[in-house]
Amino acid sequence: VPDHRPTVNETLIELPAGTLEPHEDPAVTAARELSEETGYRAGRLELVSEFYLSPGILDEKMRLYVASQLQPGTPHREAAEQIENLIVPISDALAMIADGRLRDAKTILGLWWLQQRR
Amino acid sequence: VPDHRPTVNETLIELPAGTLEPHEDPAVTAARELSEETGYRAGRLELVSEFYLSPGILDEKMRLYVASQLQPGTPHREAAEQIENLIVPISDALAMIADGRLRDAKTILGLWWLQQRR
Repeated sequence: VPDHRPTVNETLIELPAGTLEPHEDPAVTAARELSEETGYRAGRLELVSEFYLSPGILDEKMRLYVASQLQPGTPHREAAEQIENLIVPISDALAMIADGRLRDAKTILGLWWLQQRR
Repeated sequence: VPDHRPTVNETLIELPAGTLEPHEDPAVTAARELSEETGYRAGRLELVSEFYLSPGILDEKMRLYVASQLQPGTPHREAAEQIENLIVPISDALAMIADGRLRDAKTILGLWWLQQRR
């Protein structure tokens, strides 16, 4: 999901992700963000890993899910989000880490976790 | 480097890291933080990768260096930093990712980059 990020002033390729609503189950957040950002609905979500991104600055804990049994649908993106879908084989995504096109930490971690599990 | 992080209220195992001083060369920051946090001085520092940790929230760009030709010395830790050195073989560090003892994103990324390069 390439997304223009005003904070870093460039377009980044990222896995779908977002923030928990109050009292929301993290798996519900994952399903909601996947659907909102990409349109895809997941028949199955599996928790793979939990980690901290910037423990010195933020208490943000990231939970990583693998979504499967995907059904395409209509995204519901916020007006300020300049997002489009990028669908590539896992081998291409891993090559994009190696050559520096993929520079988002959670995305690199997610793809490497997926590679390790296979 | 296990470090008690008040933001997340637990002790995390992390690679040495820190923030650029104004106008500081990132390699100088890396050498300084390594020395301050662990006592080790690096004869050689090599830039391996650059990535963003939380591009939706922070413009923090992380640069990852491999330090070699290490000489032990005396750490200079800030009073609030509850840090101690943890020195393990790379194989043990990778096992600590798999079993969830290692939960810091930059640390997981750094160790996997090192593994890929070998």
